[in-house]
Amino acid sequence: MTFNASVLTLYPDAFPGPLGVSLLETARKNGLWALETVDIRSFSRHKHASVDDTPAGGGPGMVLRPDVSAAAIDSLPRDGRPLIYLTPRGKPLTQAMVREWSAGPGVIVFCGRFEGLDQRVIEARGMDEVSVGDAVLAGGEAPAMVLIEACVRLIPGVLGKIESTEDESFEGDLLEYPHYTRPREWEGHEIPDVLLSGDHGRIARWRKEQAEDITRLRRPDLWTRYQRRQGEEP
Amino acid sequence: MTFNASVLTLYPDAFPGPLGVSLLETARKNGLWALETVDIRSFSRHKHASVDDTPAGGGPGMVLRPDVSAAAIDSLPRDGRPLIYLTPRGKPLTQAMVREWSAGPGVIVFCGRFEGLDQRVIEARGMDEVSVGDAVLAGGEAPAMVLIEACVRLIPGVLGKIESTEDESFEGDLLEYPHYTRPREWEGHEIPDVLLSGDHGRIARWRKEQAEDITRLRRPDLWTRYQRRQGEEP
Repeated sequence: MTFNASVLTLYPDAFPGPLGVSLLETARKNGLWALETVDIRSFSRHKHASVDDTPAGGGPGMVLRPDVSAAAIDSLPRDGRPLIYLTPRGKPLTQAMVREWSAGPGVIVFCGRFEGLDQRVIEARGMDEVSVGDAVLAGGEAPAMVLIEACVRLIPGVLGKIESTEDESFEGDLLEYPHYTRPREWEGHEIPDVLLSGDHGRIARWRKEQAEDITRLRRPDLWTRYQRRQGEEP
Repeated sequence: MTFNASVLTLYPDAFPGPLGVSLLETARKNGLWALETVDIRSFSRHKHASVDDTPAGGGPGMVLRPDVSAAAIDSLPRDGRPLIYLTPRGKPLTQAMVREWSAGPGVIVFCGRFEGLDQRVIEARGMDEVSVGDAVLAGGEAPAMVLIEACVRLIPGVLGKIESTEDESFEGDLLEYPHYTRPREWEGHEIPDVLLSGDHGRIARWRKEQAEDITRLRRPDLWTRYQRRQGEEP
């Protein structure tokens, strides 16, 4: 089964970007997934192919018209896929969401521009509002790439045998431990002794401690959840 | 002053992607900012231009070699710019970080691949570890685009008069209120009456309530911070 990613955008030329290189490009050529872009502007029936209008109630910027947005959305077969709208107002993207979508038939992703999409379309079409990073962008294209890349790399066969989707950040609520590789000494800095000890138990314990330390320090939110799952006092 | 974005990547072909369209492309042509990609692989002195090696202590995947990564980093003038490493282990990107960087001379962004970068380089070069969205990716290229786009749109002159960087999500710890535009009735759904009332005070209050409601519902983390700033009980 092919994972079908459809992207609704005013800027199809922004794609494929990072979705067109390395393992993702190979997997696409091998038919494991497909990428389709739909130009929202081509669904405008207005003069100069206009897609936006001023906000009701006043204020800065422009808003994507509901009729144009909905026509673009409705041109795509839904096929059981989630319809995701990338917006800073959305639920923050998590690896759990990515896992669920990557196991399904694909995703439809709507990339906002201007001040955003008319709220009526979001509600009438049951759009899933998702945010990628707490920053405001010019458009949803870059976050769409983040979301699609995260999904595609989990499709069986996309990552080679050498890569892994275990032991990585957000699995088990811990950030990942630090990595080291050759040379053993670099600019006077050595690889930590424990990693060269050959003692697999000790290495595993050290890595777990490192992962716990960095999570506690940088992500109190994940740390609290991790502790709860461990049955400890938060 | 031009904002200089330099990107260290194994996949320069992934760029410019969304950084090469719309207002960002116009601003780049007008000299408001510049984008440079540096191919990490060209700094390998190993056979087959190898850039990675197996992880010290065992485990899946490959790790970027410190000598190659550092040579690529050191090839760039720092010019007072932050050296940012995009990794799920990093501090989550915020609009406050974006504001600070966008007011400076630019950014140097290192895009990880494989299991990641050797920890010694991160420490020896004082890299700022930043995460964009709690999902694991194949590489740092898509998050680099998120980060650079967020910075560039805040550079004075990049957004037209019609766009705005006020009243948007994350400014003042609230998500943005919903938007509506013409037509007044769409598929039987009307624009909320208040927005058509012409009463600017009522519109402002309604929008604030909407922004508060959506923030409380979707982002308890931001809501708590907002309430603290308002001097209320959390």
